[in-house]
Amino acid sequence: MRKLLVVNSNTSRAATERIAASCAAHARPDTEVTCVNAEAGPQGIDSLLDVAVSGIETLRLIARHRDAYDAFIVACGLDPLLDAARQVTDKPVVGIAEAGMLLACTLGATFSVLVTARAQTTFVREVVRHYGLERRLASVRAIELTTAELIGGLDQMQDRIVEAARRAVDEDLAEVIVLTGAVFGDTPRAIGPRLDVPVLSGLVCALKLAEDLVDLGVRTSHAYTYRTPAKRDRLLGYDDLQHVYSS
Amino acid sequence: MRKLLVVNSNTSRAATERIAASCAAHARPDTEVTCVNAEAGPQGIDSLLDVAVSGIETLRLIARHRDAYDAFIVACGLDPLLDAARQVTDKPVVGIAEAGMLLACTLGATFSVLVTARAQTTFVREVVRHYGLERRLASVRAIELTTAELIGGLDQMQDRIVEAARRAVDEDLAEVIVLTGAVFGDTPRAIGPRLDVPVLSGLVCALKLAEDLVDLGVRTSHAYTYRTPAKRDRLLGYDDLQHVYSS
Amino acid sequence: MRKLLVVNSNTSRAATERIAASCAAHARPDTEVTCVNAEAGPQGIDSLLDVAVSGIETLRLIARHRDAYDAFIVACGLDPLLDAARQVTDKPVVGIAEAGMLLACTLGATFSVLVTARAQTTFVREVVRHYGLERRLASVRAIELTTAELIGGLDQMQDRIVEAARRAVDEDLAEVIVLTGAVFGDTPRAIGPRLDVPVLSGLVCALKLAEDLVDLGVRTSHAYTYRTPAKRDRLLGYDDLQHVYSS
Amino acid sequence: MRKLLVVNSNTSRAATERIAASCAAHARPDTEVTCVNAEAGPQGIDSLLDVAVSGIETLRLIARHRDAYDAFIVACGLDPLLDAARQVTDKPVVGIAEAGMLLACTLGATFSVLVTARAQTTFVREVVRHYGLERRLASVRAIELTTAELIGGLDQMQDRIVEAARRAVDEDLAEVIVLTGAVFGDTPRAIGPRLDVPVLSGLVCALKLAEDLVDLGVRTSHAYTYRTPAKRDRLLGYDDLQHVYSS
Amino acid sequence: MRKLLVVNSNTSRAATERIAASCAAHARPDTEVTCVNAEAGPQGIDSLLDVAVSGIETLRLIARHRDAYDAFIVACGLDPLLDAARQVTDKPVVGIAEAGMLLACTLGATFSVLVTARAQTTFVREVVRHYGLERRLASVRAIELTTAELIGGLDQMQDRIVEAARRAVDEDLAEVIVLTGAVFGDTPRAIGPRLDVPVLSGLVCALKLAEDLVDLGVRTSHAYTYRTPAKRDRLLGYDDLQHVYSS
Amino acid sequence: MRKLLVVNSNTSRAATERIAASCAAHARPDTEVTCVNAEAGPQGIDSLLDVAVSGIETLRLIARHRDAYDAFIVACGLDPLLDAARQVTDKPVVGIAEAGMLLACTLGATFSVLVTARAQTTFVREVVRHYGLERRLASVRAIELTTAELIGGLDQMQDRIVEAARRAVDEDLAEVIVLTGAVFGDTPRAIGPRLDVPVLSGLVCALKLAEDLVDLGVRTSHAYTYRTPAKRDRLLGYDDLQHVYSS
Repeated sequence: MRKLLVVNSNTSRAATERIAASCAAHARPDTEVTCVNAEAGPQGIDSLLDVAVSGIETLRLIARHRDAYDAFIVACGLDPLLDAARQVTDKPVVGIAEAGMLLACTLGATFSVLVTARAQTTFVREVVRHYGLERRLASVRAIELTTAELIGGLDQMQDRIVEAARRAVDEDLAEVIVLTGAVFGDTPRAIGPRLDVPVLSGLVCALKLAEDLVDLGVRTSHAYTYRTPAKRDRLLGYDDLQHVYSS
Repeated sequence: MRKLLVVNSNTSRAATERIAASCAAHARPDTEVTCVNAEAGPQGIDSLLDVAVSGIETLRLIARHRDAYDAFIVACGLDPLLDAARQVTDKPVVGIAEAGMLLACTLGATFSVLVTARAQTTFVREVVRHYGLERRLASVRAIELTTAELIGGLDQMQDRIVEAARRAVDEDLAEVIVLTGAVFGDTPRAIGPRLDVPVLSGLVCALKLAEDLVDLGVRTSHAYTYRTPAKRDRLLGYDDLQHVYSS
Repeated sequence: MRKLLVVNSNTSRAATERIAASCAAHARPDTEVTCVNAEAGPQGIDSLLDVAVSGIETLRLIARHRDAYDAFIVACGLDPLLDAARQVTDKPVVGIAEAGMLLACTLGATFSVLVTARAQTTFVREVVRHYGLERRLASVRAIELTTAELIGGLDQMQDRIVEAARRAVDEDLAEVIVLTGAVFGDTPRAIGPRLDVPVLSGLVCALKLAEDLVDLGVRTSHAYTYRTPAKRDRLLGYDDLQHVYSS
Repeated sequence: MRKLLVVNSNTSRAATERIAASCAAHARPDTEVTCVNAEAGPQGIDSLLDVAVSGIETLRLIARHRDAYDAFIVACGLDPLLDAARQVTDKPVVGIAEAGMLLACTLGATFSVLVTARAQTTFVREVVRHYGLERRLASVRAIELTTAELIGGLDQMQDRIVEAARRAVDEDLAEVIVLTGAVFGDTPRAIGPRLDVPVLSGLVCALKLAEDLVDLGVRTSHAYTYRTPAKRDRLLGYDDLQHVYSS
Repeated sequence: MRKLLVVNSNTSRAATERIAASCAAHARPDTEVTCVNAEAGPQGIDSLLDVAVSGIETLRLIARHRDAYDAFIVACGLDPLLDAARQVTDKPVVGIAEAGMLLACTLGATFSVLVTARAQTTFVREVVRHYGLERRLASVRAIELTTAELIGGLDQMQDRIVEAARRAVDEDLAEVIVLTGAVFGDTPRAIGPRLDVPVLSGLVCALKLAEDLVDLGVRTSHAYTYRTPAKRDRLLGYDDLQHVYSS
Repeated sequence: MRKLLVVNSNTSRAATERIAASCAAHARPDTEVTCVNAEAGPQGIDSLLDVAVSGIETLRLIARHRDAYDAFIVACGLDPLLDAARQVTDKPVVGIAEAGMLLACTLGATFSVLVTARAQTTFVREVVRHYGLERRLASVRAIELTTAELIGGLDQMQDRIVEAARRAVDEDLAEVIVLTGAVFGDTPRAIGPRLDVPVLSGLVCALKLAEDLVDLGVRTSHAYTYRTPAKRDRLLGYDDLQHVYSS
């Protein structure tokens, strides 16, 4: 039995429930998935400040639960502070943007990422560059949903998502579509049949990769970038992260 | 029950048996793995001509068996003609070099690939570039085994592999080690405990990704790069590949 | 007297004749050009499977004739398995896509490549990247000829080619136009006067470079990427390529 | 009179005093510099968790004081969460790693960055890549000081710093040396005369650039990457950052 | 008192006066700015021949005055022969394109450069690449002013400049606008309020950086790229540059 | 009969004679080669100021003789102002560094460039980058000849050149060696037999490409980068270049 902790980096319980439903639909029978959300920070993540705050809260949750789970999923389409999360534990930690893009690489020569607002375009491109995957990126395309539409639910939005995906395929030569946002839920599965190219849910891909990494019995490298820091006297004000340094 | 076909791109039955053993040790209980080897071509693959010939033979096997399996693994560390294989069927096809490198991206900021002869260095770098992953590559390191040593088996070679891996970590700042060659068998698992960084077997990673892609129910994109070609009159001399064009 | 073998990688005799006519018009008086076509494989090359099969057949022809000629030209705009061809002999082997792009670099800061179908765009970009020339590439532009039009001959198509070239210049800031496909025949010479930028035929460029390399008395490097493989016991089923390994 | 706030991202008062002394020595007469340090987080910053926590604390300080100063300097050699800081205010925010590298570009074709521990090498390279300056980077070189040595003060360490700088020049073809760490204080000025290439203090460079940006009367772009987020209901648990969203 | 020499690389006195006015408006009180123009060469610079000739004349002026000033500014938006100018003296030399782009990096994740003619687009892109800043470049946008309009003055052209800038922001995701041409004078300040993103004048940025470099007391690296050449017997026909070699 | 003008960019008649001898040995019978040297500027070119001055003098010679020749070769291993030379005439202009590197691309996957002094390394790398060929560059290796040795002639230096080439092959994985400097004369032919990889003379390669371009009947693109500038009133002090603008 694999035990996975999925951390919704924002504070929205509704989003956490949606995430939990997707995980339930896709986890293997012998995988136990627990979904939690950040206990502080924003309800939705769409600016760099949001990313930073949500990232810290995500680190806290992973640190707190690091003994109780076999692997962790950071369930936000901007992979907030994923690198730092890999330092907090040496158990596998998978981000949903990263996972969606890595699996996309096995299905097509290029992929496009769909985001919910045009202003996220530059962030997401930077995320792709950070992973060194810019050569595989056909485009980042925005659906430009209003907040009202986001609240109304994506189910009614499927036509707009399909339209954005088709433009990515036709105009940007995208061969795979990646929906990284946790907010997209099971949209990929729903719209897949309407498109000629594969559509991936970052969340579901992360679930698959986390299961794999647990099965492989591997641990995150702590050699350089994610190395375990030496013990310190005091991480003032962050007692819940203090013990990370002792390991 | 997932049915996977693993194609050893060379003609060595001994290698196929070694591959089969690794797969048996790592496949999920509900995965049925069949291992075959190329029916023509070289016994070992270490030049561009070998890659080309083995690649064609791999395509032939995948084309012949494309209705009988859910996904395919090209089990050669140089991923021979993997792109073309993705055109022959729209079921998932995973290469072991690609799979090892993609999963390495979730465990460290950089990886090194170990190869068995220095002359392969330039090929493997090109393979990495083809996947757009050069930014994650710390180095390609050669173990420089003689043919006699390769025949003698890698079990006795583990000290040399460990030594090459350690140099990759110490000198090249590698954070993950990837052994892409099918010839390495279960070496990664054996030497893992002797290293401070994760060691991945490309073959085992490919097995995991192939299982995932089947579970995701996705198909390879045939939009552009791997598109299904229109029907033709005759693929002279390659009748076994002819039907690919009719689909 | 230089002796060149031009290998049309497809099986179309009509195409071979067209290629021969272009060569006859451009070869130096003391160059003897022999044109052959693949004896198996597709009649036209426009998918990765076509590339792979045509590439193998091209290798076979070069290997068979390697003692009789001074240099070889792979006459297909996708340079199928050109790298492997360079291993089969150490006499110069030139690809027509490569040759057109290299000479374009001496005439303008950027070039665009025209192709006959939009779906080839992603392949050709990858070919450009493989040669490390992406920084010089303004665009890959498709003319989108139907098969009927292709059969009808490109002479009537010149207006469409000119139009695509002009858009490459105006919209993509292309400074040179490269027609890599052997199918284009002498189109470049015909349309050149209608454009303000130079138009190159990859085939003719390859002919020039092959003549040069023979005159320079140089041989392909077999140091690493194209190295001569050690002798093997048996290249099963590819007897015609077997002797390559003995050299 | 320009008013600058320099935020030492760690909690060490000794470091803040050292920073203040450097600023006092280099600020223009009509610049008023106030130095503060993070009120929580680590005493020294050398892992990704440190960067994340220190970054949040830096954001908090900038947000709290954003009305009282004309520009802000993030005084940590890893520029923690500098991007997010630029969203918290539209007044200029300058990072000391960034500033040192940008000014280095005016003095030499390449620069090397010296860091205090080899394990930081991979981070710093990523920082350089994030700024898109990898083409100018000759190397990241570590001085490998022990904690005892760091505490003992860098004055005694100058020989080792000079030695590392010389190796960067001789072996890596560095043309400028950048010391990004705030811990280096006035070392650059002290060792400058012993080297044949310019040596820059990131901190002093940031001071200069911040003064310039204030004089230019420009504001940070909030167009895309650093855009001002729309008002939200609640940034739970981060009341001190809440008001950022209202602007 | 800092003494700066600003070299207008063309021979237009009107342009020099415009440059002098901008400098007077932005120099610090204790900076003395002298503006000169090239004594030979073209009146305006917009081809590679212009760049070459103007560059040589700029070198001559810097060499002649190198003892009398503390730093030099090359005041042409194409930074003609800036690299060579850095060899002529080891006092700081700043180019206005370079300066505008470097400071833009502190205000936004990307910048666009506006030029006065579309044909300059490819040059300016190459200038950006030469500085290794292509990752930060959103676009080069041309305003397409006629010569008559340029002579008529840019004041009446502000609407067109604003329009081009807005398109850069809206279509290319530019976060900062850089006007590198000396011809733009104080346009950036005039149009700034009409745009939502910062607008920088390369000339004014260069003035600021030159002041900074003088204050820092640093000298241009002569280690490799800009190294001081050994004495020679005779630089035939360039007596005014001869003495450069003796230092 | 093709008429080529080879411009030795420096003022050394001895070098011009050496260049003429190489051309005589390699030009086709129906090619008439005229070699001239710069009438002003340095005797040898090894700093950026040398490059600038020699470049201008090269432009002057090409402009003066542009009606009398079919193509031009810039015979200096740093290709001084080659881009500007392409604007002065629309007849083909070939640089010897460029030509050596382009032909090297047909003989191996990577090449190394040998230079005569380590300080040129950074220039030459920039030249390679300017051509967009950095991906093919294995290394720039310096032979570190003293001036005395250079004067003494390279014939005695062949051992040192061979040694540098071997290290490029062994340590940098170079597959082709390019000697770009005109000073190397026929060294490549002399040392070729002692090396396992092809050795190219940039000068001879340029001769071949210039002959080809004349035979192809093509002209340099004047579309953007090398465009013909509009007529101007006066190019003050450069009367010999004035007429360029009238065409």
